Amino acid sequence: MSVSGSDAQQPDVLQINGEVADSVSVLERGLHYGDGVFETLRCHEGRILFLVDHMARLRRGCAQLNINFTDINTLREELLQLANLTTHAMLKVIVSRGIAQSRGYTASGTECATRIVLRYPTAAYHVPPPAKVGVATMRLSENARLAGIKHLNRLENVLVQRERIDRNCDEMLFLNARDEVICGSMSNVFAVRAGQLLTPRIETCGVAGVLRQQVLRLAQHLAISCYEQPLALVDITSADELFLTNVRVGIWPVSSVNQKKLSPGPLTPRVQTAFMALLEKGTKESE
Amino acid sequence: MSVSGSDAQQPDVLQINGEVADSVSVLERGLHYGDGVFETLRCHEGRILFLVDHMARLRRGCAQLNINFTDINTLREELLQLANLTTHAMLKVIVSRGIAQSRGYTASGTECATRIVLRYPTAAYHVPPPAKVGVATMRLSENARLAGIKHLNRLENVLVQRERIDRNCDEMLFLNARDEVICGSMSNVFAVRAGQLLTPRIETCGVAGVLRQQVLRLAQHLAISCYEQPLALVDITSADELFLTNVRVGIWPVSSVNQKKLSPGPLTPRVQTAFMALLEKGTKESE
Repeated sequence: MSVSGSDAQQPDVLQINGEVADSVSVLERGLHYGDGVFETLRCHEGRILFLVDHMARLRRGCAQLNINFTDINTLREELLQLANLTTHAMLKVIVSRGIAQSRGYTASGTECATRIVLRYPTAAYHVPPPAKVGVATMRLSENARLAGIKHLNRLENVLVQRERIDRNCDEMLFLNARDEVICGSMSNVFAVRAGQLLTPRIETCGVAGVLRQQVLRLAQHLAISCYEQPLALVDITSADELFLTNVRVGIWPVSSVNQKKLSPGPLTPRVQTAFMALLEKGTKESE
Repeated sequence: MSVSGSDAQQPDVLQINGEVADSVSVLERGLHYGDGVFETLRCHEGRILFLVDHMARLRRGCAQLNINFTDINTLREELLQLANLTTHAMLKVIVSRGIAQSRGYTASGTECATRIVLRYPTAAYHVPPPAKVGVATMRLSENARLAGIKHLNRLENVLVQRERIDRNCDEMLFLNARDEVICGSMSNVFAVRAGQLLTPRIETCGVAGVLRQQVLRLAQHLAISCYEQPLALVDITSADELFLTNVRVGIWPVSSVNQKKLSPGPLTPRVQTAFMALLEKGTKESE
């Protein structure tokens, strides 16, 4: 069963720098080098979930790539306006460093960042069916300068989807070269062991997900111990419970890893219930 | 002294799928994920240098990324036509997987690849002044699935340019995590030791340059022994001679690495002369 349900696969709103437009300059550095960052935000009943966290990561990504993006408040206003006019949607933001001022890799430093906003209408949120997860053959490459942020160099995430489909999985887990589990191709991963939550550090590769961050906070509120630490594959396959996080899918229980079945447990539903509460009520941080 | 001289920094021709156009769909997967490949070709007196090699790498890159690019002959014709109408230029080709047919990383497999051709007029070729080279602080990340080809995930190449400028270098060398020299940010590297040419293997990261391949062939013709092998930084700094390869700059002698001076030697000029002969006469393989 697909978790995307009846979600639209094409955007109903396309805006570039605040104007309705469906094309960008062929000289965009985002196109030439993947020189930019993006965010995917969930809009639920007219509110944007975890907007503050998304904007913080976007800002962090621009800083890490030395992209001079000064329009973050304008972007925030645009997103709120688009959310207001809809009920359920995913909003995708791309910030590219801007139009290339010269040939070659070197940025001038005076590029004007281009902000792109796309809105994809979705069905109302529903709790996802458990995921069949595979472990990707391809190891995730490591570069601390690019870790954590949601930059546009996503070929690894793209390539692994073919293996996902070939193996009839819902999501693929990435290991690094030392066989440590890092994250899913579009999610972060939490293992439950003896009532504690364990999740990999995102230090040399992977994206530090917004819902991952929220779960770390939720765990505190729920008085569940939670540790960021290296996890071997066996830590995942022998976990009491396993779930993935992704702002579109929510808290996503895992039913099997490489066909090894995992049984459902008591902790995942507790986190799921807490997520549903955030979804329904919103939080001060998220609006 | 800049090696780019009076070269144009903006293209005088912009074509998308054979039509004059300066913008692409905001849904291009090349923009969203760096999901595509590129080539930069030198056009010298109306001829394109090493066209066969460039087209072969483009084809290899598309195959490695499962991009269904069927218009390679059309692209070749377009390039030859653009070359014919000019004297000296750089031609940049981008092939993006195409317009996204759905949200998310998964390609449908039925995307229609988008081919982009840009022409940048340049001055006539001149032998470059020797390069001051620095060794990048950032290590190149490794993924054999992405090595060798010229894909659009180029943030590492972009980010290192800032260090290049800060350190007043002409080019930066990348090491991998095991401190082996791999390549320059926009070039490949050859060391000369005891009359032999040594160059790193391009197996887990880096781009397998078209001029690198030509030098491997030239060495055979010139009866110079040439080995692809791992090179430590000390192999580079203690080399008898060092040169870089790049189809725009040509054979680029190195005068210093991290401020350690290297003296000019007899072998680099021999390779340079052979390159100039290719440039002036063309070769069967290159037209």
